[in-house]
Formats: sequence, structure tokens, C-alpha cells
Amino acid sequence: MSDDGRHDDGRGGGRYVGARVPRREDARLVRGRARFAGDVRLPGTAHAVVVRSPVAHGRLVRCDVKAALAADGVLDVLTPADAAGVRLPCVTLAPGQRAVDYPVLADAIRYAGQPVALVVARSEAAAHDAAELVDLDIEELPPVLGAEYALSGDAPLLHPEWGSNLVTDFPLGDPPAECEAAAAAAEHVVELTVRLGRATPYPMEPRGITASSEDGELTVWASTQAPHHVRDHLADALGLGHGRVRVVACDVGGGFGGKEHVYPDEALVCLAAIRLGRPVRWAESRSEHLAATLPARDAVHRARLAFDGDGRFRALYCDILGDLGAHPSNAGISPFAVTGVTLQGPYRFDRVGARVRAAVTTTTPTGSYRGFGQPEATWTRERLVDEAARLLGVDPVELRLRNLLRPDELPHTSRTWLPHDSGDYPAALEALRELVRTRRPDRRGDDGRRRGIGFSCHVEATGMGPSEEMRRGGTRAGGYETAVLRMEQDASVVVASGVAAIGQGIETTLAQLAADHVGVPLERVRVLLGDTAATPYSPVGSIASRALVLGGGALVRAAVRLRDKITMIAAHQLEASPADVEIAGDVVRVKGDPAASRTLAEIAVSAWRAWDLPEGVDPGLEERVTYDPASYTCAFGAHAAAVAVDPETGAVEVEGYWVVNDCGVVVNPAIVEGQLRGGVVQGIGMALTEELAYTPGGQPLMDYLPPAAPDVPDIEVRLMQTPSPVTPGGMKGVGEAGTIGPPAAIGNAVAAALPGIAGRITGTPLTPQAVWSALAAEADREGERADRTVREDREG
Amino acid sequence: MSDDGRHDDGRGGGRYVGARVPRREDARLVRGRARFAGDVRLPGTAHAVVVRSPVAHGRLVRCDVKAALAADGVLDVLTPADAAGVRLPCVTLAPGQRAVDYPVLADAIRYAGQPVALVVARSEAAAHDAAELVDLDIEELPPVLGAEYALSGDAPLLHPEWGSNLVTDFPLGDPPAECEAAAAAAEHVVELTVRLGRATPYPMEPRGITASSEDGELTVWASTQAPHHVRDHLADALGLGHGRVRVVACDVGGGFGGKEHVYPDEALVCLAAIRLGRPVRWAESRSEHLAATLPARDAVHRARLAFDGDGRFRALYCDILGDLGAHPSNAGISPFAVTGVTLQGPYRFDRVGARVRAAVTTTTPTGSYRGFGQPEATWTRERLVDEAARLLGVDPVELRLRNLLRPDELPHTSRTWLPHDSGDYPAALEALRELVRTRRPDRRGDDGRRRGIGFSCHVEATGMGPSEEMRRGGTRAGGYETAVLRMEQDASVVVASGVAAIGQGIETTLAQLAADHVGVPLERVRVLLGDTAATPYSPVGSIASRALVLGGGALVRAAVRLRDKITMIAAHQLEASPADVEIAGDVVRVKGDPAASRTLAEIAVSAWRAWDLPEGVDPGLEERVTYDPASYTCAFGAHAAAVAVDPETGAVEVEGYWVVNDCGVVVNPAIVEGQLRGGVVQGIGMALTEELAYTPGGQPLMDYLPPAAPDVPDIEVRLMQTPSPVTPGGMKGVGEAGTIGPPAAIGNAVAAALPGIAGRITGTPLTPQAVWSALAAEADREGERADRTVREDREG
Repeated sequence: MSDDGRHDDGRGGGRYVGARVPRREDARLVRGRARFAGDVRLPGTAHAVVVRSPVAHGRLVRCDVKAALAADGVLDVLTPADAAGVRLPCVTLAPGQRAVDYPVLADAIRYAGQPVALVVARSEAAAHDAAELVDLDIEELPPVLGAEYALSGDAPLLHPEWGSNLVTDFPLGDPPAECEAAAAAAEHVVELTVRLGRATPYPMEPRGITASSEDGELTVWASTQAPHHVRDHLADALGLGHGRVRVVACDVGGGFGGKEHVYPDEALVCLAAIRLGRPVRWAESRSEHLAATLPARDAVHRARLAFDGDGRFRALYCDILGDLGAHPSNAGISPFAVTGVTLQGPYRFDRVGARVRAAVTTTTPTGSYRGFGQPEATWTRERLVDEAARLLGVDPVELRLRNLLRPDELPHTSRTWLPHDSGDYPAALEALRELVRTRRPDRRGDDGRRRGIGFSCHVEATGMGPSEEMRRGGTRAGGYETAVLRMEQDASVVVASGVAAIGQGIETTLAQLAADHVGVPLERVRVLLGDTAATPYSPVGSIASRALVLGGGALVRAAVRLRDKITMIAAHQLEASPADVEIAGDVVRVKGDPAASRTLAEIAVSAWRAWDLPEGVDPGLEERVTYDPASYTCAFGAHAAAVAVDPETGAVEVEGYWVVNDCGVVVNPAIVEGQLRGGVVQGIGMALTEELAYTPGGQPLMDYLPPAAPDVPDIEVRLMQTPSPVTPGGMKGVGEAGTIGPPAAIGNAVAAALPGIAGRITGTPLTPQAVWSALAAEADREGERADRTVREDREG
Repeated sequence: MSDDGRHDDGRGGGRYVGARVPRREDARLVRGRARFAGDVRLPGTAHAVVVRSPVAHGRLVRCDVKAALAADGVLDVLTPADAAGVRLPCVTLAPGQRAVDYPVLADAIRYAGQPVALVVARSEAAAHDAAELVDLDIEELPPVLGAEYALSGDAPLLHPEWGSNLVTDFPLGDPPAECEAAAAAAEHVVELTVRLGRATPYPMEPRGITASSEDGELTVWASTQAPHHVRDHLADALGLGHGRVRVVACDVGGGFGGKEHVYPDEALVCLAAIRLGRPVRWAESRSEHLAATLPARDAVHRARLAFDGDGRFRALYCDILGDLGAHPSNAGISPFAVTGVTLQGPYRFDRVGARVRAAVTTTTPTGSYRGFGQPEATWTRERLVDEAARLLGVDPVELRLRNLLRPDELPHTSRTWLPHDSGDYPAALEALRELVRTRRPDRRGDDGRRRGIGFSCHVEATGMGPSEEMRRGGTRAGGYETAVLRMEQDASVVVASGVAAIGQGIETTLAQLAADHVGVPLERVRVLLGDTAATPYSPVGSIASRALVLGGGALVRAAVRLRDKITMIAAHQLEASPADVEIAGDVVRVKGDPAASRTLAEIAVSAWRAWDLPEGVDPGLEERVTYDPASYTCAFGAHAAAVAVDPETGAVEVEGYWVVNDCGVVVNPAIVEGQLRGGVVQGIGMALTEELAYTPGGQPLMDYLPPAAPDVPDIEVRLMQTPSPVTPGGMKGVGEAGTIGPPAAIGNAVAAALPGIAGRITGTPLTPQAVWSALAAEADREGERADRTVREDREG
């Protein structure tokens, strides 16, 4: 290995890196010994229930809590007046965005489910009963649904002081005029107007929090992807010293983007704990989750792909209109911006541009969601590519291969500023094509269903890039990570990292990295995560497929430093050159001299006790390394889906699914494959069934349909490994990869199965109703055409 | 200030350093909000009771626990067989010492009170009841009391495999022959045989522990002076990875040396928690404390001071024989060695030497005690000095002034290897003489009591010196400290240190240092101590008057680095030179340019988010500095006592007490004075009343008499400040200083009050019985002499 922890062969290959090590977190998860936020029970804990607005839009004229306060067991009721000045920030700001934070309780109501009060009682039942006694007098206003309606002159203004429901409107990449000129010069253009429905993170563990305030210290147990992020925002919101707030994430039953924020209800629970001086607990119900946890998007894309007769892509342009919900949330407009930034994907273009607009509506604010705008970009681009192939009459895979960036063209900076570091995109797609060819199911029996296969390719931005670039992009947080690595006196190793374990296996993966890069057995490595009091500061936690890239990158550097220090101390004590000394199992020895060795524990003891250390070497064996990447690292994925569509019902079944993914050095193939398969399942949900819909009155519908086992085929995964030249250790992220490809691949497969209505496959989810309606509309149109022909015949 | 945090004027002088800042820990202590080890109550906690040997010496033939195990509520009973292999270490090894560790439970019984079993039950009462059902069959052996008897041929061997009860026998300083030759060449010699009784630490909070073992992690809440030390020894004893053990010291109600070890009973409680998989709690009773918590010494000194007719000291030699109790404890023989090392005190000699021997006896093992051998050294040397003054007929203060090292003779390395760094010993003693002259009580009424004033001087080794020197001295731990200093995004500062708060106010003192050396208001500094999971590793914790010297020294360096980093970032952002930038209140500004400034919080935010940092500067504002001192730093103390002795009863009253102490830069005079006054009270106890005595059968007597308020006069303290040239910040330790001078000063005062029996004032405590016996013996001797004269007259 090089000093930066890169393997010489570029493909992992240590004892543990690259091995299918069993996940160490599973030992507690499968034995029921995991602890989730809801398992925290402190003596004297009070229970909170959130009173939420029953209407989508209005003004809270009166919030009468007298009856609730008088109810049995009630300890406190918080109203907007009690939380005046308590606000949570938007972490990413868009050009022209006026709202930079938002109140946790307010009289202005802008979505059904918005918190208007918090009831705290001795029992959860008492809190629920009392919550029903809170008397709300709301002056109702008309709902505003859909970003396009919000921007029409007809819609009422949600924030009248802004003079508009538009939050931002800015260009990305090549200017519209240049994109237009390039399109005009091209031989062909395909266009689509895309509508992507509102998906929502649906973790097995909904949100939950217990807060305890004692002697001016606030301790918070929360189900979160980003404990330090939560700490920062709670401290700022509640006016506490940051050092006085401790946030602990226990085991987290999935995040999927929905747990990267701190939410108004969570901040209110903390405020209540401070007011009462006793612990307060709140656990989100499933229906609350659908009303209050930030969902992804809605977005409308108007997109155009221009290309020549030989299939060469010339220009890609997309007008992105995002629905922010009631106000810019923590993530603000950034998912829509990321759609623009990743629009180009892995292809070569002369021009790529986007317009990014976002509007407020009377719905739950939209936020982060696994994929973060990239499934949307991939849908639109890859659907256009298939429509282009159809127009040209060429094989869609062939068309992609003609336009994919070749390895010799990398590194490449996209026309929307995203640096692609490394990969072999054509080889990956060819591998996928071969995989599909050999593994494609032979189920073309005469069951009346139409079958098709669809492909999609994407480049995934993993991690969030250098801190300075994030700042220039409007993000008010850093992008680096810090790893602390300590060898104890018994030669065991403790890793502390600010990234959080959210079910993705990062505890195991970091242990593998540490074991290999220090050179100790895996069993001797312990990983500490999730507790702000025990881990180094992480600006944003486990989001953006960054935990391994940033947390692991920092760890690799720390491990190399630790190994070097051990070697240096041993060399000093053995009177050898550090270059001649190696760690081998439990000993540090001089190569070729079996008699000259020390046990690792002896070296550790001498380091911690400051005995016989080389001049200038500090006592102890603890390394703390911060890693702020010099650039982005991008993973590549090629997906294929085989579908069967029932033309009678519109029901789509995914019969086969294949992924070739290149996320650089694979630390644990089992975990990476699991991440990809889980992501694909989520992507199938996005593609086919998941939509958080609203009634015309602005009420969220409480039915939401994630895929179940029968909806999911075997998902075959092949991994390629092009090490990242950016990341120490060569890793790229994989947390979101699985979700990015499926909607487009499945959409293309449905279009392939139903070529007659391919042009109508323009949005997600492709529910039976949506597909059936498209078929019916096409039938109507053909019927009309037939009618017309008949009429023309008659009239002719 | 210089880069090393030394004040230019050498006398403190920051905003907080030198100020009588109120102790921040008092807010919780006086409001009853402090939490001690016994306050930890975890769900499902079981209670432990230790079964102790009722005899001093014997062999446990059978330990029948059937009845106890069957008793109501009993969960477990641990016998020696259950704890086989669980051993605790001697941290300091003497030359020739064979025992390097000792079992937590053993069949070989060597003191009354030795643990022989542990009963764990659902309630404390049930555990006590069941403990009485444990049936011990002990084959009794004769007790061995007193080190001199232990080394006589008559005593049975406690560890027959050693062939002797002698544990060590080694010389210190100048060889005996050289000391003897120097004495022979001198004009006068005074000799004393000194016997110093067994004192014991007597904290308001006895020992106590709660241990919880879950998922392979052991968490221990203990009343301890050294959490990391406890962690190391528990991990080693129980075969756990060090990273799997967390030790938390809550508020600690005093240590006085008795809580620097982990004890067999504490390790057993941890073993029980691991076996049961539920928390186990044990709290020491007062009588257990007297039987089981390690007391100080017994020691016998045979000492000789040689001097010339002009009072010039020539040689000092002491044969030190220590009583180790049943086996070398954690501290082993080191208190007796420290008596030798500090024998020379602040004076000039041609030759100083000691012989250090230690023997085992059938008593509780002796260990650390505030002062750690130095009160003993001071007693013997200062009593000899007063006897020399008496012999020469010169004023004892005059004689001291003739022999004290002058400032121009410092630094000085004593003939027993202790480097004295700085001070003005003669000025301090003269200041004390003046203080006594002006403040001496005028109570010489004719109450029949004899009055006297006594003086003593000492040099105190504060801290334990460089790690390498400790190692050469046989100590198996390092001597350094690490400080972590973090500025949070709200510009608050968090200090984490491995030294422990044991009631000495270190939380406040470290906050003062951090506030001044970073340059922020004190209220904004928070100090974290006592939790191994939240603080940097400390090899030995709060012992040896080292917390401020080492913990504070490291902190000063870290603070200076943090200030420099803040200044550097601000200079970069303000486009100024770092030298032109200063921290002033809440802002960092360019000197002389009011417009050019940033708030500290702005700098902190930019540092943590990695925005606009100078090239090569890491994100974050956290400094971690390890400080291993290059040498020792020595404090100086001069004490004076005025006593009244009732010749009828032998009762000694201390009527006045004065201290001049120089512990370098004084961070908080109120705390330093409090430390000194508290130490003097303890020293009065040592001098007059405190002795843990044994019956001839080897049973410890359960009466022990620390001083009460009526036994203590006003104690007047004057502070001198000669900054240490060794310690960053200039501090020297003061934790033990108060205890070192009083026995000698009071002994000299009693000798001055009773010049006729001065030669019989040779040991502590000077109980009424001891003084009365000395008076009676002298009366007998004078009677005999008178008889003889009469007889001679008659016969003449």
C-alpha cells in the first residue's frame, strides 16, 4: 500500500478489505439487543404528543390550551407563543431565497400536519387524551397544490411578504440560448414533459426522540443520520452552548434522507424537557410520519435531447420545477439543483443546461430522500435516450455505448460542473448487457402480458465535495470528516467517527478498513459512532453516500499514521530502521530477524506510558485526522429491468433486475450488494407504487405502498472496481446508487413493452392506473384516429 | 505572555489567573445536586456485600456458600475459586520485590478484613443477611505485627516461598559509608529513633462502585482519583479489551490517596456484574473503610544529623523501615522511597543518604496517603534540626536560615536525586517568622499549660516527574497529561482532561487557565473530567499534587495553540498579519483598525465548516496537547505551630498555625488557601490523634479520630509565587503541601513546650497518652536520677 492507503493493485486486497465479513451489528440486531431511540427510558420520563394542524392553509387565531392543561397527568402544553424565536435553519440556500430558517411553531399554517402545539403528560395516553382538548380556532385559506398552480397568477400567496410563491429561479451549466442553438443545429430532437410523484422515506423505525435537561446540559437520544448536525441546530435554536448539548443516535432503523434534519417536533420536545426539567419522550406514529416527515420532490421537468443521425448526443436541456411544500426545509431546493447538476450523467454532450425553479405549496415541506434528485435526473435523461433510440431505430444499449465517456476521457468535468474522477462506463454497460443476455428470464408464455427490457446508466456524485465548493454552492456546512483511531494498551483498536450507523453496515466497514490499514485482526477493532460526546465532529453525518468516502477516507489516513507510529517506536526500541520493521499478527518485528521483535501490546504499553520513545514522539497511540476531499468522487451504475405489463389492468411486474455498479474499492462486497439490492427495491417502489398524494383540499392521503417481497425479483449485482484517485483507500459511495437507476430502467422497460404508448411513459409512479390510463388514452386517440379515418373515408 | 503561557511578570496576572473565582463545583455541591458513586442507580441493580476474613492470618480451608446461595434474593456468591487468576498490579516495583501483583480473592489470609467472598443479592439487606450464612473454615496462624518483629527471626513467614518477610532493601543517595565518614568529620551529631503511626485517608465519601456489563462493555461508576488507572487495571484483571471498559468518576467526596487504586472488592463487583449480566452496586461502610481501604505507612526511622559548631549541616542519614501490611499494594514501597528521596528537604548538605527497607505484616496493606512519605521525611529531618538547635543553643529558625538553599543555588539536584527548580526558601521562612511574631496569640495565662512554638520547612515534589524517570524509578505508569481544548461554533470552549475532580476545585482552576490563555470569558468555558469515554488518557490521575501541574501544564499549551489558530484564521480572513490580530471579548480584530474584525463565533463557524481557512490549516478548533515534563517542579512550605500542652493529661492543643507556601503561579488563591488549610487540618490529625491501631491479635481497632472543628485553630496562610521554570503557566502543585509540615512543626512546638522531654518527642501521633507517658518516663528517670543522687549522697 502507498502512504495514502491506496492498494498497489488498485483493487483492495488486504486481509479484510474486499472480504465478505459478516456485519458485526447483526449480532445485536438479530438477537433483539439493538437499542433504538424509542427504547430509551429514563426515570421520570414524560411523554409528548404533537398537536397538528387539521387544515392545509390558514391562520391560527386562537390556541386554547386551558382544558388540556387541566387534564389528568398533563405537565405542560407548548403553543406558538411558548416557542417564539425558536427556529430551524435551511442548510442550503438557493440564489434569491429569502427564507433562511423557519419557526418550530407558528400561527401561519401552510400544511396539514404542521405542528401547532405540544402536549406533555405523565403517560402517552394522557398526552393523547389532552391533545384532543386543545381547542384550535383556525381561519382557513384556500390550499395551493402543485408547483405549476402555485406559480399561476390564480394561486394565493403563501408568504405574501415575498410577493410570489417562487423561491428561486436560476440556470445551471450551459446558457439556455447556447443549448437551444446546439439543439437547432442537431438533426433530431426528442422532448418529454415529466411529472415525478412525491415519494417519502419509509424507514422501519419512524422518527423518535428522548430529551433530558439537567444542570444546563441537554442530552438527546434521537433516531438520526447526523448527530452533530442535530446538535448544532438544537444548540442554535434553543440558545444553548454547543458544548452543552449531547446527541446520541443509538441503533437507527433506517434513514433514507428523512433523518438528516432536526424537525420542529423534535426541537419542541427538547424545549419541553428544558422547561420541565425532566426527560420528555416522543415517538412518531406511522400516520404522523406521512404527514410530518419530509418527503421527496414533486417535480415537473420539461426536457429536450438533441442528437444527430449517427446517434451522437449534441445537447440536453431541462427546465426543472420543484415543489418545496410549505417553505424551504433544511435541504431547501438542493435536491432540485442536484437534478440539474447530475443531468448530463455519464455521456458526452456539446451542451448541457438546466433551469431550476422551486415554488412553495400548501403541502409538507419536501426534503432529502435517498438519491437526492439523481433518480429524477436519471429518469428524464434515460427516458429521452430511449426515445431517441426508438426514433433512430437503434438498440438503446448501442446508442448509450456510442455516447458514454470513455476511460481515456476521464477525469472529466461535466458541463454542469460535476467532476467525474474515474471509471470504465462502456465496459460496465457491456458487462450489464452480457449479464442480461445470459440471465434474462424465459417467461414469455402466453399470459397476455407484454414484456420489455429497459436500461439506464448514471453517474452518482458520492460525498458532497470539498467544503469550500459546498460553501460556494450555498451549503452552510462543511464536507469533511475526522477519524480518531486509538490503539489501547492491550493492542486493541478503537475507531471513533462522526458518521452515523443507520443500518448500512458502516460499523463493520470501518472496522475492516482499520484492521487492514493498521494491520491487526478485525476482532480487535471496536468502532464508536453516533454519540457527539464520543466521536469527532461531523458537519453533516451519514448523508449523500458519504459515510465511507469521507469517514473511511479519514480513517485510512489515520490508520496509516498509526501504523507508522507503531513502526517507528518499534524500530527505535529494536534499533532498526522503520523501513525494516513490520506488523505481523501480534508482534512488530524486524524483517528477516525472528529474534528482534516486540509484541504489539508491549509497544502500545510503552507508547501510553511514555517509555523509550524516539525523540520528539508524543506519548500515546492515538491519531486524529481530518479529511476534506480535494474533489468529488463519482460512482457509476448501469441498471436493467425486465418487466411484464398486464394491458388489462396496467399492472407492471418486475421479472428480472440486474445492476453493474462501480463504487471503486469495495470494502465489503456483501454490504455493497446489500446496499444496492435494498436501493433497487426502494427504486422499484418509486417507479411503480410509492406516491404520497393529496386530496384537492390539501390533506395527505394516508395510504402509501412500499414494495413487498412478492413485488421484487432476484436482483443480480455485479461489482466493478475502479479505485477513486481522490479518496484515500480508493472508495466511492454506494448508499444511494441502488435507488438512482430503477425508475428509469423500469420506465424504459415499460416503454419497451408498450411501444405504442412509449411517449406517454413520462412520470412516476407507474401505477396500474397510470399505465392503464395511458393505454386507454392511446386507445382513445387511435379510436379517434380510426373514427377520423372512417369519417374521412365516408366524407372522402 | 510567552508562547509557553508564562506570564511576563512571572506572577499570573491574566484576567482570571490569580483571581479568587468562586468554585463552580460548589453550585451543585451546596444545592445537593452533586452526584456521588453511591447515587448511581440503574434499573435492575443488584447489591453486593463483601465477606471479609475475621482473622489476621490463616488459611481458608473451606468457604461453604450453599446456605448463602439458597437465601432469599441471593443472585450469586463469588469465592476464591470463582476469581482465580483475577489479580491487581503493584504499580511501583522496588528493587528485589518478588510480588508484582496480588489476587482479589485468595485462600491465603494475611489481614483481618481481607475479602474472602462476595455476596450479590436483589437488595442490600438480603446481601447482608446472606453474607452471614457464608461458612468459613479458616486454619488460623499467628499474627505478625510491626515491621521490626516481622524481620526478627521469630516471626512466621507470610509468604514462605520468599524465604523472608523483607520485600526490599536498597540505598538512596550517598552511600552509608560516605555519610558515616561525613558524620564522623562533623563536630556534632544528633540521633533519633522515630516511630510513625498508621494514619488512614478518611474522606467524607467512602469508596463505592456500580458496575454494569452489557454487550461486552463494562461501565463502571466509581469514587476514584484516577478513572483511567482504574480502567487499565480492571481491563487487565478481567481480561477485557481496554476499549471495552469505561470508568466514570462522578463527584468524588475526597480521595487523600486512598482512591488512587482499584481495590480487590471493586474488581469483584465488576466480575459479578459480568457474571450476572446486570448492574451490581457496592458501597463501603465506615468500618469496612478502616479495615479495607489502604492506610499510610507504619514506619520506623533511625536517623542522624551531623553538623558543625557554626550550625552548618554536614550529613543526614536515615534508615527507613516500612510496614507494607499483608503484601505490596498498588503503591508498593514507594511512600517509603519518597521519604528517602525528600529527606534532604530545602537544605544544603555534604552528604545525604537513606536505606529503604519494607517488610510484610499481617495488617491491611499500606498505600498512598496525602503527602506520600513526605510528612515522615519532614518529621524526622525537622525534629533533628530542632534537636541540633537545642544542642547548639541557637534559635531553630536561625539554624534553618543558615542552611537553607539560597535562590542563587537553584536549580539544585538533591543528593537523593530530586531536582529543586526554583524558590526563595530563606525569604519564605523569614516571612513566616515575621508572621508568627506579629500574629502569635497572647494566651500565656496561668492555666498550668506549657506553651511552645515549632517550625518546619519542606520541599515538596509536585507531580511525578518525566515518564522516563518514573520508569527508571520502578513505576509502571507514565507521568504526562493530555489536554483537549475545543472552541465550539458558538465560541464556547470545552476543556477535557484526564485528571479527576476529587473536591480540590480543579474544574474551576482549569477553567480559569483556559479562559485566560485562550482569551474568553470564564462563563464560556466548560470542563469535562472523570469519564474515560470523554477525556484523554491519564496514566495516573489526580495523585501526587500533579493535577494542576500536569493537567494544567498541558492545558496552557493547548490554549496557546488554540489562540494561535484562531488568530491565524482571523488574520487570513481579515488580510492582516497574525501578529496584528488580537482576541478581545467576543471579537477578533486587527489592532488599531476597529472596522477590521470578526466575531469569535464567526471564526469558530468558519473553522468548523472548513470555510476560508489559510492553506494547510485543518478544519475545526480543537487542540490536543500532551505534556510530559522535562523535570520535576518543587513547591516550598514553611510551617509554624503554637501549642499548649497540659502536663497533667498530656493533651496538646494547637493554638496557632501559620503557613508560608510557594507553589509557583497561583491560579486561584482561595482554592490554594483552602487546599493548604485542609491539609493542615489533616496534618494536625496525623500529629495528634489519628492512628489506626491493631490489637495484639491483629484486629484493627474501629476507633479513629480525625480532628473536629474545636481541635483546629485559625490557620493563617501567606502565598509566595516563584513561577516554576518547568511548568507551562508556571504552576507547582499544592494538593499535599498542607499535610507535610504540621506533624514536624507541632512536634517541634511540643518539644519546645516541654524541653525536658524534647528527646522523647520522636513519633506520631502525639496523643495525650503518648505525651503523658513521655513526661512520666522522664519523671521516672529524673526520679531515678534524684534517687541515685540521694543514694550517692548517702553513700558518698
